[in-house]
Amino acid sequence: MARIDLNSDVGESFGAWTMGDDAAILPSISSANVACGFHAGDPAGIRATLRSARGANVSVGAHVGYRDRAGFGRRFLDCAPAELAADIVYQIGALQALAAAEGVAVRYVKPHGALYNAIVRHEGHARAVVDAVRDVDASFPLVGLPGSLVLDIAERSGLRVVREAFADRAYTAGGELVPRREPGAVIHDVSAVAERVLRLVTEGVVRAATGELVRVDAESVCVHGDTPGAVAMAAEVRRTLDEAGVEIVRFA
Amino acid sequence: MARIDLNSDVGESFGAWTMGDDAAILPSISSANVACGFHAGDPAGIRATLRSARGANVSVGAHVGYRDRAGFGRRFLDCAPAELAADIVYQIGALQALAAAEGVAVRYVKPHGALYNAIVRHEGHARAVVDAVRDVDASFPLVGLPGSLVLDIAERSGLRVVREAFADRAYTAGGELVPRREPGAVIHDVSAVAERVLRLVTEGVVRAATGELVRVDAESVCVHGDTPGAVAMAAEVRRTLDEAGVEIVRFA
Amino acid sequence: MARIDLNSDVGESFGAWTMGDDAAILPSISSANVACGFHAGDPAGIRATLRSARGANVSVGAHVGYRDRAGFGRRFLDCAPAELAADIVYQIGALQALAAAEGVAVRYVKPHGALYNAIVRHEGHARAVVDAVRDVDASFPLVGLPGSLVLDIAERSGLRVVREAFADRAYTAGGELVPRREPGAVIHDVSAVAERVLRLVTEGVVRAATGELVRVDAESVCVHGDTPGAVAMAAEVRRTLDEAGVEIVRFA
Amino acid sequence: MARIDLNSDVGESFGAWTMGDDAAILPSISSANVACGFHAGDPAGIRATLRSARGANVSVGAHVGYRDRAGFGRRFLDCAPAELAADIVYQIGALQALAAAEGVAVRYVKPHGALYNAIVRHEGHARAVVDAVRDVDASFPLVGLPGSLVLDIAERSGLRVVREAFADRAYTAGGELVPRREPGAVIHDVSAVAERVLRLVTEGVVRAATGELVRVDAESVCVHGDTPGAVAMAAEVRRTLDEAGVEIVRFA
Repeated sequence: MARIDLNSDVGESFGAWTMGDDAAILPSISSANVACGFHAGDPAGIRATLRSARGANVSVGAHVGYRDRAGFGRRFLDCAPAELAADIVYQIGALQALAAAEGVAVRYVKPHGALYNAIVRHEGHARAVVDAVRDVDASFPLVGLPGSLVLDIAERSGLRVVREAFADRAYTAGGELVPRREPGAVIHDVSAVAERVLRLVTEGVVRAATGELVRVDAESVCVHGDTPGAVAMAAEVRRTLDEAGVEIVRFA
Repeated sequence: MARIDLNSDVGESFGAWTMGDDAAILPSISSANVACGFHAGDPAGIRATLRSARGANVSVGAHVGYRDRAGFGRRFLDCAPAELAADIVYQIGALQALAAAEGVAVRYVKPHGALYNAIVRHEGHARAVVDAVRDVDASFPLVGLPGSLVLDIAERSGLRVVREAFADRAYTAGGELVPRREPGAVIHDVSAVAERVLRLVTEGVVRAATGELVRVDAESVCVHGDTPGAVAMAAEVRRTLDEAGVEIVRFA
Repeated sequence: MARIDLNSDVGESFGAWTMGDDAAILPSISSANVACGFHAGDPAGIRATLRSARGANVSVGAHVGYRDRAGFGRRFLDCAPAELAADIVYQIGALQALAAAEGVAVRYVKPHGALYNAIVRHEGHARAVVDAVRDVDASFPLVGLPGSLVLDIAERSGLRVVREAFADRAYTAGGELVPRREPGAVIHDVSAVAERVLRLVTEGVVRAATGELVRVDAESVCVHGDTPGAVAMAAEVRRTLDEAGVEIVRFA
Repeated sequence: MARIDLNSDVGESFGAWTMGDDAAILPSISSANVACGFHAGDPAGIRATLRSARGANVSVGAHVGYRDRAGFGRRFLDCAPAELAADIVYQIGALQALAAAEGVAVRYVKPHGALYNAIVRHEGHARAVVDAVRDVDASFPLVGLPGSLVLDIAERSGLRVVREAFADRAYTAGGELVPRREPGAVIHDVSAVAERVLRLVTEGVVRAATGELVRVDAESVCVHGDTPGAVAMAAEVRRTLDEAGVEIVRFA
């Protein structure tokens, strides 16, 4: 039987500002990437999200990012690797304590936004992420883009890596993501997205933007949680997989 | 033989800004209250302080404060108790992860600045501090002012409490601190401070600003680390105690 | 003919986080209280709001607050009056430059949230607000609560003051606001709110929560912009006043 | 008679953290680059610096930087040009209001740290800086590195530009700065620095690290204010120039 993990970003509200609907997205996913207070999330809000996660049968991961709240962690920040590593250790530890206070455990790490993208190629920051995860808990899987430098370094350092695909992103014939700035980079049709995920899970392929079928090796699929239609899309993806008999399993 | 703990605030630099001289103060003390990033301290700097602390035979404590970096945690912030509790859990957890990465353990909690002062009487914030410490580790001692509401609540909640005195602060005849805004509240003479600490430790009394001898019950004495003459004063206190045969012992 | 000003808070989004719908609320109001970056608002977002305001025939005011983004300026912060005054001058100046770059002028000041409430009675902070406004432009009107200490100090300092009422808040028989924590403090029925504002404007009275008619002296009425139904409520208030022939006039 | 401007960074303390000694450096310089709160500086501290500057016969400039206090503005931040432009307008306006409250005027703009370096080549950020200055006051001179893209864009946009040299930095044979990471990049000998500045001012040349004499075209010379020996070095540069009969003139 086919099986897959579904992950989504949660805990990204901040103070009076709301982002996404964590309680509504959690039933559709198996892994919750929880913001840690640097790109998003404040302690009381993160804690509320962790409380929801406890009852939702999901794994909790640390969604760590650059120290840039004004930019929501979406802007590359040229910090020193040692600064970045300390920032990441700090974020994971903070989340672990809040999680423990709510009776759940942090089980993996997934970098956010500009950091996620930078470490596809930026060796200094990639090594900093790997070092930080190992400093906190060398048994934590690290989630990233297939083919990225960071997963390569992580594997050679002995970390377990989890390759992920994106439910609503177009792929090139080479199996890479179509850059966001290009037309058609994001797929908005809910049924189309659900069908793509199903095919990815059951056959290991996606239809590229240019028409070819390309192999995508993924242990988890990211469904977005912060856009208006996110909850409906995640629910449809989940429903489609459930009906097809795909088992939704937490990787951690 | 008389014995006492000496504690001081460290890790309070921030980015390009330096505060105190952690490496120079550590040899004089037995307990290091390390900033956790809310009132002071950034992850890389905190980590450097923890590295120094590891080699210095001191206990490391979490020096938690209000979320107010611009005010260095010295301004009362009327946050909701649940917000404060989450902020404190977050800070302790962040410090724990950085400490673990450097091979040391966090062993106690001491609130900072305006929070320290508020919980002498503010029940909501006092309970939030106690709840936060218990949520992280109910075996952590909580350092505070003798007679404060927070220590009362902490004891009734089953936490171990550590009462502290202040090396360079004047006391009233009632055994309370002379408020900082009053003349003579802070004693600057290094020898006088050292003698006061010695008498406090060996006889359990200090000479009040008004001349009376008053009992002060303290398991630890706070020596400041962030003022120009701080290192010299701490060293003189330590030297005086050592020469008198007082044992400097970590309470945690 | 009766006349009134309608004011609302705008510019309170921050980075990736949206608050309210500025473009939708502006057509209903005559005075836009624009956040200045301390409790809410980032420069690019504030600028976008100012651009909308330019085409909307509204006066722009500086909505200044405590330096507490995590608390959205809703938590009292016990800062020194001189710190607060400098913080307010800074905020007004920043807004003025952004406004000038968009071809509009800042014309008044309205304190936000916990600061608004504190200066009803807190003399140090009330004087700091008045000093700051005078330091920037002594011709700026200051918006506040009728009977508040800050308006008293402002008038005696030569500032023009603008007393405001709240469209959706219940009043006591004494003409004060029913505290938010009490049941019925906020009125959610759109028609009821619109009728209350109309009566306030045309007769100078509101029906208190306890049934009495009480006089409320107001030159402006605040309609909220940050709640889900805010746009609809503001539109209904405006429509009701327009139909009754009330002239909506900017006070500044 | 030879003439030159001497500029230095001031106002870079933050809250409880001190940076440099503004009152001591001001008598040696003619242009004070005042931090605006994004990379350094808080409103009350900036205001105190402006008060000192008022009595010191210096021009005040806005020392604008990336929104990165933890990195002191020394880390490149890949923000969108429109975000950067708004951030800069905001900073200049905030400084203008504080300056006006202290009876001084802001007269020029000098970017700080990583922003200063980025706009030597980064077109998007260079244009954003120029746009922001023009939006605030098109009569403001912009200080920058000779040969930088930003000064080229600024001149073509009609801004006055001020080329600067660095008192304590080594130059290449091509007239560029030796990168900081290379040995000998910073000259620490006070007399050597003073002699270099004198020769630069009177002959228009500096001795390159590789021995050649190279022409450096500069209307202002930057002396650092934030290092331990900064005050003494600035004083020696000033004394040397005064004794040689060089006139120290503000460019703005």
